[in-house]
Amino acid sequence: MYRLELRKPDGRELTLYSRRPIAATLEATSPFSEPLQGKPHLRWHPLRGEWITYAAYRQDRTFLPPPEYNPFAVTLSPANPTEVPQGDWDIAVFDNRFPALDLGAHDTPVLTVPTAPAKGKCEVVVFTQDPASTLAALPLDHIELLLDVWGARTEALGARPEIHYVLPFENRGAEVGVTLHHPHGQIYAYPVVPPIPARLQQTAATHYAAHGRGLLQDLIRDEIRAGVRLIYRGESAVAFVPACARYPYEVWIATIEPVQSFAHLDAAQKQDLARALKTVLMKYDGLWKREFPYLMAWYQAPTDGRAHPESHLHAELYPPYRTPTRLKYLAGTELAAGFYAMDALPEDKAAELQQVQVDIQ
Amino acid sequence: MYRLELRKPDGRELTLYSRRPIAATLEATSPFSEPLQGKPHLRWHPLRGEWITYAAYRQDRTFLPPPEYNPFAVTLSPANPTEVPQGDWDIAVFDNRFPALDLGAHDTPVLTVPTAPAKGKCEVVVFTQDPASTLAALPLDHIELLLDVWGARTEALGARPEIHYVLPFENRGAEVGVTLHHPHGQIYAYPVVPPIPARLQQTAATHYAAHGRGLLQDLIRDEIRAGVRLIYRGESAVAFVPACARYPYEVWIATIEPVQSFAHLDAAQKQDLARALKTVLMKYDGLWKREFPYLMAWYQAPTDGRAHPESHLHAELYPPYRTPTRLKYLAGTELAAGFYAMDALPEDKAAELQQVQVDIQ
Repeated sequence: MYRLELRKPDGRELTLYSRRPIAATLEATSPFSEPLQGKPHLRWHPLRGEWITYAAYRQDRTFLPPPEYNPFAVTLSPANPTEVPQGDWDIAVFDNRFPALDLGAHDTPVLTVPTAPAKGKCEVVVFTQDPASTLAALPLDHIELLLDVWGARTEALGARPEIHYVLPFENRGAEVGVTLHHPHGQIYAYPVVPPIPARLQQTAATHYAAHGRGLLQDLIRDEIRAGVRLIYRGESAVAFVPACARYPYEVWIATIEPVQSFAHLDAAQKQDLARALKTVLMKYDGLWKREFPYLMAWYQAPTDGRAHPESHLHAELYPPYRTPTRLKYLAGTELAAGFYAMDALPEDKAAELQQVQVDIQ
Repeated sequence: MYRLELRKPDGRELTLYSRRPIAATLEATSPFSEPLQGKPHLRWHPLRGEWITYAAYRQDRTFLPPPEYNPFAVTLSPANPTEVPQGDWDIAVFDNRFPALDLGAHDTPVLTVPTAPAKGKCEVVVFTQDPASTLAALPLDHIELLLDVWGARTEALGARPEIHYVLPFENRGAEVGVTLHHPHGQIYAYPVVPPIPARLQQTAATHYAAHGRGLLQDLIRDEIRAGVRLIYRGESAVAFVPACARYPYEVWIATIEPVQSFAHLDAAQKQDLARALKTVLMKYDGLWKREFPYLMAWYQAPTDGRAHPESHLHAELYPPYRTPTRLKYLAGTELAAGFYAMDALPEDKAAELQQVQVDIQ
């Protein structure tokens, strides 16, 4: 993996990654010339016992570009700079212009609840220069590069004392609120272990302490044995609709043996994980012969300075559709009680995905 | 409050409630003649440490009625029975035909995760006979009756040993997935204290043990003192945008002094809580001069047989809009990390709601 670290005219960081050497003459571009004014802050939710981040300037984050303007396409003319320069690179990572978390955050208001600077970092990951491509369509070695990039970002961000958790994710499709369709994901680097990762760590740590094995490791062993919900089975990686899916087409992707984070993947695991990911995404798109929206998040070990032998790197994918025409809405029981109700059996949805044939070179 | 308990032809329970005596000659109706086949089951999510409920028959819950058919309107002809009979009643409560939880649940599949019968109850609460009305438009004494009905249902359901938590809620508007626009809510009676109420109880119990006062009670005291986010301030009840709002127009409604559940409200508190609720809903509808969608949930003490002096009955309302034309999507950071990011400051949204004038007789 080759990389080139640059700084944008408005002060934000940009790093280009490639499978080939990158010309050191490339220069960072930005649609903005001045640094962003205003910093986010955190407020404590005393009833839920969690932090919420407030970044009021994000309301202005659409700046009424012409409909054909794509800020993630390469800059073709210095008069109309985008977020990324022309040149021979595969993946670009840069600071979100409207971050929900910012390492430079400082002042906080005095309120009826505790407040704190919203330290952290929000990065955009442009998956490819091709605006018409998709993550599913990228070649395997490009997807492997993405796994490397996620690893590199996790290491760089996690090394900062302020950062306790790094979450790479992709929101894909207008159905999940995405307005910008150039293939891209995001990375949030949090100053705390957020509530859901904290919960996953807690259940995994309890299991690890009791059994000396990983919780997800044992579940994967059982899912491979059962077979009925498997979507991909490789030498080192696996994908399946979990028996406890909360979304009809929910899929998890993981190494078979526990790996704490991207940086710990060996070459065989990385190759197989890329193949598992591509297989799942191609099956999604193949299911109804159209682009399939989803939220994909990658869970890994916290970067809070503690040992996490219980961690097991994996992705969870949550598609919003129940049927080709009907969305699953999170409503009263899910959002207010945290108690998920499912209309579909995971076994039936797994069978649908199993029947989609994909051909990967 | 008057009530009449009936049983539908397909075996489901129906209870009618009214401010006036109800004729005992009323008979329960149902669009269905046979009992529902199939029962829901629970599956344990080992990574999150929570139960998910599966009710595959719910996929068939639309039975292609003609577009003008409203199953919650009163039955006008025995040939076309709806869910509720004609007669002089104000509020009707009946078992959901397609429940996510069912006290009769028994068998469970053997899977890679623990399973259990999905015992519990899902009820529909028809707020009024008028299909064109809204909860906001009902007279105060009708809303007070609804508080009584929620109390009566909580007592009846909570008295069952299987039921550990009763959650009344309303999903309102097509934006939150509602397809049936007759004013109605739902009640879920759970066999466990679900994850979010469990979390609220835990933080409240910790505060109560440390201070001998309620966590929400103290927050309300501080919000009244601050004043800036108040939406309604009565003798016994209050409504405000919490300083830690996770949705732009989130509002909480509560008694000022802690009350554990609906059944513990005194007459003055009930009156004032009804007025607070009506005020908030009228402000919502008045804000953009159109029906304002929201999810409203009422949290109260668990019915798990333990004492809950830490509990404080209150509603949380989550509207899905950020601006008149833009929805707030829950995406990567919210759904995968449980870490909410807000574009709007609660103080600004409170000011918008404060400026909406409402006139309640």
